[in-house]
Amino acid sequence: MVSARKAFDMTAMKWWGWGPEGVQFTHEDKPDLAPFITEVLGIAIGKPTEKPVPFDDLTIPPSNVPDGLRADLDAALGTAFVSVDPLDRVVHARGKSLRDLILQRRGELSRVPDVVARPGSEDEVTVLMQAAVIWDAVVIPFGGGSSISGSLEAAAGEARPVISVDLERLNKVLAIDSSSRLARVQAGVFGPDLEEQLATQGYTFGHFPDSFEHSTLGGWIATRSSGMQSDRYGDIADLTRGLRVVTPSGMLVVRAVPATATGPSVREMVLGSEGRLGIITEATVHVRPIPERRTILGYLFPTWADGLGAMRDIAASECSVSVTRVSDPHETQFSFASRVRPTVLDKLQSRALRIFLQRRLGYDLDQMCLSFIGYEGSEHHVAHQRRAVGKLVKRHGGLCIGSGPGALYDQKKFDIPHIRDFLLDRGAPGDVSETAMPWSRLLPVYDAVSAAASGAFAEVRVQGYLMCHLSHSYHSGACLYFTFAFRPTARGDLLAEYDVVKSAIQQAFVDNGATLSHHHAVGTEHARWLEQDISSPGVEMLRALFDGTDPRGRLNPGKIVSAGEQAPEPDRQRRPEALYPDDWGDLSPAGGNLPASGE
Amino acid sequence: MVSARKAFDMTAMKWWGWGPEGVQFTHEDKPDLAPFITEVLGIAIGKPTEKPVPFDDLTIPPSNVPDGLRADLDAALGTAFVSVDPLDRVVHARGKSLRDLILQRRGELSRVPDVVARPGSEDEVTVLMQAAVIWDAVVIPFGGGSSISGSLEAAAGEARPVISVDLERLNKVLAIDSSSRLARVQAGVFGPDLEEQLATQGYTFGHFPDSFEHSTLGGWIATRSSGMQSDRYGDIADLTRGLRVVTPSGMLVVRAVPATATGPSVREMVLGSEGRLGIITEATVHVRPIPERRTILGYLFPTWADGLGAMRDIAASECSVSVTRVSDPHETQFSFASRVRPTVLDKLQSRALRIFLQRRLGYDLDQMCLSFIGYEGSEHHVAHQRRAVGKLVKRHGGLCIGSGPGALYDQKKFDIPHIRDFLLDRGAPGDVSETAMPWSRLLPVYDAVSAAASGAFAEVRVQGYLMCHLSHSYHSGACLYFTFAFRPTARGDLLAEYDVVKSAIQQAFVDNGATLSHHHAVGTEHARWLEQDISSPGVEMLRALFDGTDPRGRLNPGKIVSAGEQAPEPDRQRRPEALYPDDWGDLSPAGGNLPASGE
Repeated sequence: MVSARKAFDMTAMKWWGWGPEGVQFTHEDKPDLAPFITEVLGIAIGKPTEKPVPFDDLTIPPSNVPDGLRADLDAALGTAFVSVDPLDRVVHARGKSLRDLILQRRGELSRVPDVVARPGSEDEVTVLMQAAVIWDAVVIPFGGGSSISGSLEAAAGEARPVISVDLERLNKVLAIDSSSRLARVQAGVFGPDLEEQLATQGYTFGHFPDSFEHSTLGGWIATRSSGMQSDRYGDIADLTRGLRVVTPSGMLVVRAVPATATGPSVREMVLGSEGRLGIITEATVHVRPIPERRTILGYLFPTWADGLGAMRDIAASECSVSVTRVSDPHETQFSFASRVRPTVLDKLQSRALRIFLQRRLGYDLDQMCLSFIGYEGSEHHVAHQRRAVGKLVKRHGGLCIGSGPGALYDQKKFDIPHIRDFLLDRGAPGDVSETAMPWSRLLPVYDAVSAAASGAFAEVRVQGYLMCHLSHSYHSGACLYFTFAFRPTARGDLLAEYDVVKSAIQQAFVDNGATLSHHHAVGTEHARWLEQDISSPGVEMLRALFDGTDPRGRLNPGKIVSAGEQAPEPDRQRRPEALYPDDWGDLSPAGGNLPASGE
Repeated sequence: MVSARKAFDMTAMKWWGWGPEGVQFTHEDKPDLAPFITEVLGIAIGKPTEKPVPFDDLTIPPSNVPDGLRADLDAALGTAFVSVDPLDRVVHARGKSLRDLILQRRGELSRVPDVVARPGSEDEVTVLMQAAVIWDAVVIPFGGGSSISGSLEAAAGEARPVISVDLERLNKVLAIDSSSRLARVQAGVFGPDLEEQLATQGYTFGHFPDSFEHSTLGGWIATRSSGMQSDRYGDIADLTRGLRVVTPSGMLVVRAVPATATGPSVREMVLGSEGRLGIITEATVHVRPIPERRTILGYLFPTWADGLGAMRDIAASECSVSVTRVSDPHETQFSFASRVRPTVLDKLQSRALRIFLQRRLGYDLDQMCLSFIGYEGSEHHVAHQRRAVGKLVKRHGGLCIGSGPGALYDQKKFDIPHIRDFLLDRGAPGDVSETAMPWSRLLPVYDAVSAAASGAFAEVRVQGYLMCHLSHSYHSGACLYFTFAFRPTARGDLLAEYDVVKSAIQQAFVDNGATLSHHHAVGTEHARWLEQDISSPGVEMLRALFDGTDPRGRLNPGKIVSAGEQAPEPDRQRRPEALYPDDWGDLSPAGGNLPASGE
């Protein structure tokens, strides 16, 4: 135990929305936002018009815990950590997908867990697992409850007792090996608490997903999370070396080695397993000394293709950066409309900048794209990288607008999930879908998603808005992160209309060579596209893994691959599917379809 | 089809040794080597004293191919590509582990495959797989045949027909997506052929394992290979994005996306699968433009701990290098003894250097360690990295000795596997074992392996030599690569004595927090340590994956996890195993056990 831990003031999120009670997004300090939303969605933004049903009006099914199971849990964990409190059970019944939010607000509860258990040690998790086996209960691990893929909800007809295992008490940094830049950390620690504990020793983990304030290390691992600075630190799959997982057949221990050739990677089976292989209790993860300097600079690009081309060229260069982000023109306009109380000086500068961009640089302001690029390290390193990146940006017609917008972005970065509640309060659904693909596929996927969303908006006859940013760059490709919202019809079913739009976007991903999710996992909400993404034998491999290690289906059943369907007879004869990607033959060997850097 | 491919002159390796007939290691141009080996092993190095039995004396079991299977293969592949030739079958019967070499030389053949099939397309592989299902045959994919873990040998008692599927005809770079820096490549391409095809387009793959000349892309993927420049390019697991695998239940297609959150990684299940999930026919892999400048510099360090400390500090710095390698004093002395015909000038310089090191720098020449650090990229980048690395080296008392030794190392780098044959020709076994571990564990593991090898040499009463180098650096740790040889007893069984030494080293790995293999896979020879490395539930997960997707055990059965043993009842109650690593509490928070840089 290296770290002297400061108690963390974690407050459970609302049972119907993001963040703790009393914390919400507001437009009142953003004078341009209401007019913008009114224009693009046709919604008047005033006070909230919609409210969740009162908690007291909910019909909460009674808790179904056999006395023996209850006694075993009480004995192992202590009665204070075995809860059948109705609010506690409802909070643990679902994650925070838009579907979850809509249904919870309506009071349409899911199969609410029968009991919420809060083990205080790995040994207690083990005893809990043994009790679940003895009493034939279903076990659903719960970190921050921020899943937006339906990973936390028990199956509607589940007849067995359902235990939601909340890991919040496993929240300590156990040891730091400074020579190896590794830390042993309990899986239930929340993002801010983890950073706080590491900071006392001079370290950072560097993993900052949008959900950072309300998600845990174990949750990040179980869902293959990615953070805002993953360009530098790596995704959670890169950051996680060792693992300890309580399974029904004992402790799964993955050694914290930097690399290994011991067959298919067991480490990579736990990553993204969403509780289907056991309960992650501990991980040994990369840490780094807090950098001397951290900065995020704002840039503008004349077009989306220029912005994407610059990010690709940075990824292909000898530069190392911590953030690569560029918004399409729609999201750029949203960002400008979201500015907090601009001063008169801000407005003058902004007007001067617009004139400069139009008259001197020939920008079309409707096509202009806002970008953020982050730098970390020694002063010397940061200065060197800024200069090198600056040259690449310039080749794509880009312009640095300084550190002000970046600092603002850095402050506001965890606000985004609150906006869904803000819109639902006004009757409008808004959600996100993200994907990854090779660089050469970025524009085709973007165009396909734009067309799919437009088609879906038209199909359900709604006014909608779609915007996008590139959020992560890799050697061979990037993540595109789409946000959409619409004004629902007066008489239609909000959820059905949402589903048409969300499905059209996801379908466009898998139809165009992209993956169904870059960092939001599969759960139940993405499961229907899984076979199109990883192919039928890929689904069969996952099913073999889950069914073989958990034949009774007690570990968060139904997530990622459905439990109902039998695995097909593996010896059946089938011809190979179409080649993927099947259109490479058309690519110019000289450079794909993004503008080349200054050539 | 982007690349105009030049036919590649691949010659099959000897049935009893490394490399094609007529190519062998010689000591005759290395005047110091024979005296060195005589000193450390007590073996007189002259002409070979031992020979493999003549091929004509082998008792080769008859080929057991049902007529219908033969007819189906002939129809699908063409008779020219379906071989029951005895030499062809014997060449495909085993890989090149030391055990393989000893047994082949003795004429103790394994369960020789019944037929060697050489499909020319993915469709032909599919038809072959269907024929294997219909005729209940076992399928063992074969790349270059360079496995040193027993991955290619059929089980001794295998009663079903055994097909060795040699992928050598699937040897083309199909397309290059230069925007994404990705290439679609057929899995059977050999290292030199791959680099040649890519070079015509200005690209390199950058993967250079010791086996480079005699191994294939598919083999690298199936065994989780690592190359000499993987510090820069990444291990094969990093380089491989998309995959196409022929399975009994259809085409497994992993999309070439840069990242994904679609559950446990199917991509990472194929990596290291050694044929147990199907036959890899194609991969989409990272490529990079051939760098402007490539150089490997030699360095000397006063001690092993200093050399390791410097490598760790480079990994933790803002430097980017392509090779980090440092030899222990034993391997350093071997390297100096292996110099090719030093000129009088070389000798004078060497003597002057020794005097300088001893008198001016205070080196103890018996403790001195030779190191190589590689640099790649633009001239500017290389110069900048050299300077930055130079400072770190200096802090650990190191000295740059220029590019001469590095160039020599670069030329000789593929010679190493030939030395095992050279020693066996003189009756002595020599072999390698490699592992990876956190930086803080390097010295403890090294000491434990040294003690284990000494103990094993004493146990079997042989004179032996153990040497080691760090071969790859990562954020949190490194690979240690051990080489050992000994003079066997006159009356004992060479193989039994070898097994005592090899087992002691492997056992020291898993007993001391290291992994059983960093890049040589599991096969059959490492399988007995697997459970100690990845824990019992980890083995059960692999077994569930293999048994669930291949219930009839037709896909290279018995590799990685044994087929014989039944999977244990997964619901049995078991207490967690001991914590790993259990000794972190003792680590100083300030820096582990490697010397800190200049503090």
